[in-house]
Amino acid sequence: MRLKDNYATVRQRSEAICAPLKTEDYVVQPVVDVSPPKWHLGHTTWFFETFLLKPNVPGYTEFDPDYNFVFNSYYESVGARVIRTNRGNLSRPAVEDVMRYRQHVDRAMENLLDQPLTPELETLIVLGLNHEEQHQELLYTDIKYILGHNPLFPAYCEEKATGATVGADKGPDMLSIPEGIYEIGYEGDGFCFDNEQQRHRVYLQPYQISTRLVTNAEYLAFIEAGGYQDFRFWHAEGWDWVKQQLTHAPLYWHQVDGKWMHYTWQGLQPLDLGAPLCHINYYEATAYAAWKGMRLPTEFEWEAAAPQLSWGERWEWTESAYLPYPGFTKAPGAIGEYNGKFMVSQMVLRGGSEVTPPGHSRITYRNFFHPSLRWQFMGIRLAK
Amino acid sequence: MRLKDNYATVRQRSEAICAPLKTEDYVVQPVVDVSPPKWHLGHTTWFFETFLLKPNVPGYTEFDPDYNFVFNSYYESVGARVIRTNRGNLSRPAVEDVMRYRQHVDRAMENLLDQPLTPELETLIVLGLNHEEQHQELLYTDIKYILGHNPLFPAYCEEKATGATVGADKGPDMLSIPEGIYEIGYEGDGFCFDNEQQRHRVYLQPYQISTRLVTNAEYLAFIEAGGYQDFRFWHAEGWDWVKQQLTHAPLYWHQVDGKWMHYTWQGLQPLDLGAPLCHINYYEATAYAAWKGMRLPTEFEWEAAAPQLSWGERWEWTESAYLPYPGFTKAPGAIGEYNGKFMVSQMVLRGGSEVTPPGHSRITYRNFFHPSLRWQFMGIRLAK
Amino acid sequence: MRLKDNYATVRQRSEAICAPLKTEDYVVQPVVDVSPPKWHLGHTTWFFETFLLKPNVPGYTEFDPDYNFVFNSYYESVGARVIRTNRGNLSRPAVEDVMRYRQHVDRAMENLLDQPLTPELETLIVLGLNHEEQHQELLYTDIKYILGHNPLFPAYCEEKATGATVGADKGPDMLSIPEGIYEIGYEGDGFCFDNEQQRHRVYLQPYQISTRLVTNAEYLAFIEAGGYQDFRFWHAEGWDWVKQQLTHAPLYWHQVDGKWMHYTWQGLQPLDLGAPLCHINYYEATAYAAWKGMRLPTEFEWEAAAPQLSWGERWEWTESAYLPYPGFTKAPGAIGEYNGKFMVSQMVLRGGSEVTPPGHSRITYRNFFHPSLRWQFMGIRLAK
Amino acid sequence: MRLKDNYATVRQRSEAICAPLKTEDYVVQPVVDVSPPKWHLGHTTWFFETFLLKPNVPGYTEFDPDYNFVFNSYYESVGARVIRTNRGNLSRPAVEDVMRYRQHVDRAMENLLDQPLTPELETLIVLGLNHEEQHQELLYTDIKYILGHNPLFPAYCEEKATGATVGADKGPDMLSIPEGIYEIGYEGDGFCFDNEQQRHRVYLQPYQISTRLVTNAEYLAFIEAGGYQDFRFWHAEGWDWVKQQLTHAPLYWHQVDGKWMHYTWQGLQPLDLGAPLCHINYYEATAYAAWKGMRLPTEFEWEAAAPQLSWGERWEWTESAYLPYPGFTKAPGAIGEYNGKFMVSQMVLRGGSEVTPPGHSRITYRNFFHPSLRWQFMGIRLAK
Repeated sequence: MRLKDNYATVRQRSEAICAPLKTEDYVVQPVVDVSPPKWHLGHTTWFFETFLLKPNVPGYTEFDPDYNFVFNSYYESVGARVIRTNRGNLSRPAVEDVMRYRQHVDRAMENLLDQPLTPELETLIVLGLNHEEQHQELLYTDIKYILGHNPLFPAYCEEKATGATVGADKGPDMLSIPEGIYEIGYEGDGFCFDNEQQRHRVYLQPYQISTRLVTNAEYLAFIEAGGYQDFRFWHAEGWDWVKQQLTHAPLYWHQVDGKWMHYTWQGLQPLDLGAPLCHINYYEATAYAAWKGMRLPTEFEWEAAAPQLSWGERWEWTESAYLPYPGFTKAPGAIGEYNGKFMVSQMVLRGGSEVTPPGHSRITYRNFFHPSLRWQFMGIRLAK
Repeated sequence: MRLKDNYATVRQRSEAICAPLKTEDYVVQPVVDVSPPKWHLGHTTWFFETFLLKPNVPGYTEFDPDYNFVFNSYYESVGARVIRTNRGNLSRPAVEDVMRYRQHVDRAMENLLDQPLTPELETLIVLGLNHEEQHQELLYTDIKYILGHNPLFPAYCEEKATGATVGADKGPDMLSIPEGIYEIGYEGDGFCFDNEQQRHRVYLQPYQISTRLVTNAEYLAFIEAGGYQDFRFWHAEGWDWVKQQLTHAPLYWHQVDGKWMHYTWQGLQPLDLGAPLCHINYYEATAYAAWKGMRLPTEFEWEAAAPQLSWGERWEWTESAYLPYPGFTKAPGAIGEYNGKFMVSQMVLRGGSEVTPPGHSRITYRNFFHPSLRWQFMGIRLAK
Repeated sequence: MRLKDNYATVRQRSEAICAPLKTEDYVVQPVVDVSPPKWHLGHTTWFFETFLLKPNVPGYTEFDPDYNFVFNSYYESVGARVIRTNRGNLSRPAVEDVMRYRQHVDRAMENLLDQPLTPELETLIVLGLNHEEQHQELLYTDIKYILGHNPLFPAYCEEKATGATVGADKGPDMLSIPEGIYEIGYEGDGFCFDNEQQRHRVYLQPYQISTRLVTNAEYLAFIEAGGYQDFRFWHAEGWDWVKQQLTHAPLYWHQVDGKWMHYTWQGLQPLDLGAPLCHINYYEATAYAAWKGMRLPTEFEWEAAAPQLSWGERWEWTESAYLPYPGFTKAPGAIGEYNGKFMVSQMVLRGGSEVTPPGHSRITYRNFFHPSLRWQFMGIRLAK
Repeated sequence: MRLKDNYATVRQRSEAICAPLKTEDYVVQPVVDVSPPKWHLGHTTWFFETFLLKPNVPGYTEFDPDYNFVFNSYYESVGARVIRTNRGNLSRPAVEDVMRYRQHVDRAMENLLDQPLTPELETLIVLGLNHEEQHQELLYTDIKYILGHNPLFPAYCEEKATGATVGADKGPDMLSIPEGIYEIGYEGDGFCFDNEQQRHRVYLQPYQISTRLVTNAEYLAFIEAGGYQDFRFWHAEGWDWVKQQLTHAPLYWHQVDGKWMHYTWQGLQPLDLGAPLCHINYYEATAYAAWKGMRLPTEFEWEAAAPQLSWGERWEWTESAYLPYPGFTKAPGAIGEYNGKFMVSQMVLRGGSEVTPPGHSRITYRNFFHPSLRWQFMGIRLAK
């Protein structure tokens, strides 16, 4: 019963996120990493249809066989997928068709949830809901990208952004953690992703970690000190990126008539100096840390210190590459493609963000992105 | 008075062409040459606002200053334009905003048309209407591309396609034209584009030109004879195109379970063998002609023979590059950018097509495209 | 007997052109259009081996079967060719091997030339020699590119450059040619390329053509008047080229400490203001003409006026696209690939240049290049 | 005195490696990662001139100021460098000029080495020699690439390749290492790179590691089992690589008439089944391991087990990303650019190879490359 409610809550939340959009906003894909909102709505639905309904509900009628082709993402086991760069070319299925698809699948899922379920099925449904929650965060980040790169800079909503000011009165900045062996990874009965398993020991040197995130004002000082013009702070790959992109500020920052503005949910606004820095990539995070004479924490340092930290406003870049934990194994079949196949060329981010669904993240949660990407709500916490 | 009616008719026709679309169809840009339908609707309106209303109507209120940036195409004189490849990223202005823009401009234009107009203004309005008619043809070709490249292959409408069957009973195939001096270019009081002027003399050798277009059945014979596998029929540049694109048939042709289908206004249909061939580029047109031991006519041969030909179903590739006529001069200002700036690396097409607005073309009309393009309604007429 | 002498002269001249080079200079390919000098030496030799020796000399021993793969250029009939962009990766065959290849083929060719030859064979040998002369011009242009793009700017030789000063005292600038029918194309018993045939009639309007080429000083005035910053003078395609390449001067021109220099056969030298302009592409040629309120001649205007002109210092861009003459037919077999396959997307140049082999060109000669290219010795003659 | 001998030995070895080459082989750069041999010879010399002679030898005469531009690699502190992709376009300086440059610098270095040196200078000279040894390995790998991608497949030398057969009689395959805390990183008085410092503790779970490398025969079994056609063994990024490159075997393997050959120092030879596998990238290494139901060791597991292993024939891919050790700091100035700037998007390799200079590597040595690269002598050791 709780699972059925949970299902309804999660599914409705995806549609609520899109409610402020115009039909046209559901369709476009300005860059390859951003997906059209209607694709997210269809893809999360396709997950339930493909992995729950079709194998487990006798007599279930597939909504449209072509949708398998359109809404598959990277599951090589389940057939040909739309090349990712082509998603923004698809005007059909229309948004109303995607909504009917969601209703069709939701009705069938509700029937399924009314019946007694095996533990395997329950696990798979919980995975599907966590998967949809991940796409809810992507809906926010992709909507912000679509609207924030439109020359009209339309607002998404009227309410105040959730990014709270990082107070200077929150106590001492650096927390000291002693040397020793720490337990890392998920433990317990709740849901976790396969990449958080197996709990294991890690030896940490003594270190210090900041109790708060870097603010816009602090990062602006780096910009004004010429940080984007001095190769010494940058990785070679990061410096190439700076020169190729002609970048000199975080994503969504614009200098208008000599004044710093940033695009927010309410449109273009004066830069909020006290807010936690957002939308910088790994190159920028490490360059800033180098300029401060510090570094980023490893994901293990982060996890060991996490119970003592306030977190959840920004995904925090760590100095750890995304690699398997000792004893990591892929699940068999398509579900096994979930995480393991991405364990190369990506860096780990820990924490959560203002657009992470409530209750979705935890201190063992491992988010990951390529070091050049910055359209997620990413920030910096320093260590040394 | 006749001009005001004409204005209303042309403007309404653009909207009628889009009437069968869903909102989502107005937004996408699958390849750089195709523009989103809402962009065509906005751009043609921007023309009237920029060149007629703003300079000539005191007190005219611009609909939205940002639209100048969004809907400019290639008029370098009038300010920064949206990079063409980015048009498909713009979810805003929404379709309903573009429609309000059209109404706003149409109301102001109607007021202007109620007043006595100088010959210069009349000429400029007629140019604006001919410009909009050109975009009406592009609306058709771009809509066909958007729907015809969607994996669901949605139909545009239910009615029969307009491409008539090319009858074998239309009389003798080849018309003989004697050697001599011919007059080429527009003459008269009506509207013509600057590229059709100045009427001048051309010496033609004796030649023969077909009285009818090549059919799908005839082109299929070329395919089945291995035409796409034999470099001898192709220009070097065309052969590179064949190998890079792995092309082996006209655009919109698909071989499904061994049977030839083509995408039409009614969706995917069995290939209509008697219909005039469509959607081939200059490389394919010349390769086909070479395989037949013939060639394409020059644009001068076409024009000299035109009064004796039936034409208007397909734009017909000629063997003439798009170059200025003797005495050609650009108009001063932004209007002067209309045609002259494209006079390099393009080939001339003559005639008209099933989606050319009625009365828009004439025998002196010079259409032009890069030799690699084929999403227009292009066909072949042979000569020797 | 004269043919044998001619063969020896032409073959030795290719090697003489390369004599000032270091071994390393024979190897590199800085851009795709430039070929390594050793490739030219091998390719011209391969022509004689493939089309003369192998089919006509019983018992001829191929020098190395792999060379067919390495030194073929664009003759699709004769087997797989090295992708053009890869030529600069080939350190082997070494220069000394290529020289031994030349000797091997020359010895066999001399034997062949000692015997009575059919007219067909004679024609083919003459074609091979004209082909080698074309590559002699390419040797010069490619050597200049290789040395002129080296940061050390090494000189090719010590002697004075051949580009003579364009005197102002050469008489009236513009020659008037009356309207009428003119005969165009090659006539006579000598050698000509297939693209110069069939002699045919062309009707020309009255026109004026300059008796001399544009000088560096005249073009510098265009630069200083902001010609590269004003889109109105440019084709749309040319303007894109200017912005992408950030070009603001002819190839090999460098502004060093505020002074104009150009790379010459003697290294970097102060710009020679009186010399005929060189190394501009079609976009630049037409932009300059537009700025002067004039235009380029068509290739027919050029040929009709040629007997009255001094020409041969620069290949002169014309306003004619490279297209077949009426009645043009390709020769059967690989030799038929010579010219016809390039008759799309190229512009015709007429005349000759300071690095054209003596006696190679004539007034009916049709050279052709893509409008964006400028590493050949190309200049401007105005018309109106 | 020992340092002076050492200097002479290392410097002569670089030239000995190049001795079998033809002049042409010194010049080319077939892909961006491969540098022309003459560039390696110049760049290692430039290091001594720039960091030793110019700052420390009063009155030292720079060989050629332009060489700073030509032979700088990635030292942003020391001025503009030649874009890496352009190195293969430079025919000058000629090989003989580079050799004179080496003699000029060697003579000055020998004078310097005859004098009493501060410890700082000694350290810098030792760094310069280790730097040259790294380029000696690159000379081998780049020469193999240049010759092995030439269609003539020329041999480098006549002697037997050094890759010994991996015997099955070397004892048990898997070595068991107990759980616990291990010390990692360099300790001692000898030379090491900054990335091997600081020695620190790491906690390892119990693991097993193979006592020998994977052989060609074993990898061939993976190929024949369809390993390159089954996405389940691959990272998403690796699978994209397979599909884009159409790869189905290690670099230098060729299937000729159904028989497996590989390019070796002696030219194209039948595949040596017993030899240790070489020239595979990280994607291939992990795919092979996944197919075997095993994994690669981490760099810490490798180092902890190393004293018990036989190593040195192949650089061994580890499952560790290249990241700073705890307490890592960059040296100030240009020397500080040596390693730290590459610590993103690369994987660590441990061990050494048949072309690593004798005595150059050690068990704490950290080599690193992008996961897609395979032109180094890279192999696989399994763990679980």
